[in-house]
Amino acid sequence: MAARRNPDKTREDLLQAGFDEIHKSGFRSADVPRILSCAGVTKGALYHHFGSKKGLGYAVVDEIMREMVLDVWVRPLNESDSPIDAMITVLTDALEDAETHSTCGCPVNNLAQEMSPVDEGFRERIEKLHILWRRGLTRNLARGQREGTVRTDVDAEDTATFLVASCEGSIGLAKGSQDPKLLETCVRGIVQYLEGLRPAPERPTALEDAATGATAH
Amino acid sequence: MAARRNPDKTREDLLQAGFDEIHKSGFRSADVPRILSCAGVTKGALYHHFGSKKGLGYAVVDEIMREMVLDVWVRPLNESDSPIDAMITVLTDALEDAETHSTCGCPVNNLAQEMSPVDEGFRERIEKLHILWRRGLTRNLARGQREGTVRTDVDAEDTATFLVASCEGSIGLAKGSQDPKLLETCVRGIVQYLEGLRPAPERPTALEDAATGATAH
Repeated sequence: MAARRNPDKTREDLLQAGFDEIHKSGFRSADVPRILSCAGVTKGALYHHFGSKKGLGYAVVDEIMREMVLDVWVRPLNESDSPIDAMITVLTDALEDAETHSTCGCPVNNLAQEMSPVDEGFRERIEKLHILWRRGLTRNLARGQREGTVRTDVDAEDTATFLVASCEGSIGLAKGSQDPKLLETCVRGIVQYLEGLRPAPERPTALEDAATGATAH
Repeated sequence: MAARRNPDKTREDLLQAGFDEIHKSGFRSADVPRILSCAGVTKGALYHHFGSKKGLGYAVVDEIMREMVLDVWVRPLNESDSPIDAMITVLTDALEDAETHSTCGCPVNNLAQEMSPVDEGFRERIEKLHILWRRGLTRNLARGQREGTVRTDVDAEDTATFLVASCEGSIGLAKGSQDPKLLETCVRGIVQYLEGLRPAPERPTALEDAATGATAH
């Protein structure tokens, strides 16, 4: 007699196998038998826990992808003294996985492009993730502005939205060419943009220079 | 008896109808009968001119999309005194069509995301378009650097690649949310980045200030 499975573990395994398969193949082409075989569970378990393939897809967005956004893009910024430093670390860490990113693309962006125009349930869920991501960046950029690590002459929300678009576009460009080198080039571009968001160092005014006898070079 | 069709016109009509259908539905879901009915031609004409649905898809990239990239992103820059001004015009013009962009996304990016990972023929063709686009921007940014309209402390090629990624990401984000307002926000972000690429105005050095008796504010 087979050992009884823990239902929580079964659910978790299905979510993870569902995520992997959707990331590689997209939602519509995701192969249910392959998900079941990777999770090592029966079709009955899938329908018991999620009701349908689409139910599993929705839960992958609500649970797995949501945690990914928080883990990669929000929590490290919340815990950092400098949101700009934290974002540069996120981006350079991402390059360690440049091969996967440029082969499979960003899981959130792939699903947004495939499903948002054709399924309102996916569109609403993905929209929530994007809002979570953009709000996380906005809040941390605004904190950086108050604390003097981010220029105050930029709009925090516009900047956050532009950063999300640039990141999604960079992975998309690399995926479109299947070329990890392109991701490196794009990340250099984003880092250069982020560096430009630091406040300019205070420069003594000409009168102060003259008063202290400083010489200009 | 039906009037004989001009074969060049038939080919053109098929290309345009193929482009429209692929833009709306993606390549794999593109409906051949709908393409034929929009073009007003027979299935025989499609196979005569392009051999297959995929042959039509390849020709849409090589001919229609290539001309779009040149018309929108390369020729206006080549003809402009300032590549930064020209790019800002391209972006603000694109906002007039924000509704379509955020509903259907960018035709090049859609096809790159859908087909590059699964079809080498599409991947190579889309790669060529991206190279055309990036080289057009690189060449014009480098010219701007020589002519003093673009900062010389940035790498023209990295900047061009980052700009392409940001544009594709912006349309993708708007499509993912089906929200034209997001495209406006992203375009403000790109324009802000472009403004930052202009050379800083020359500032008199402290010694010159002191010599001319200028006062600092």
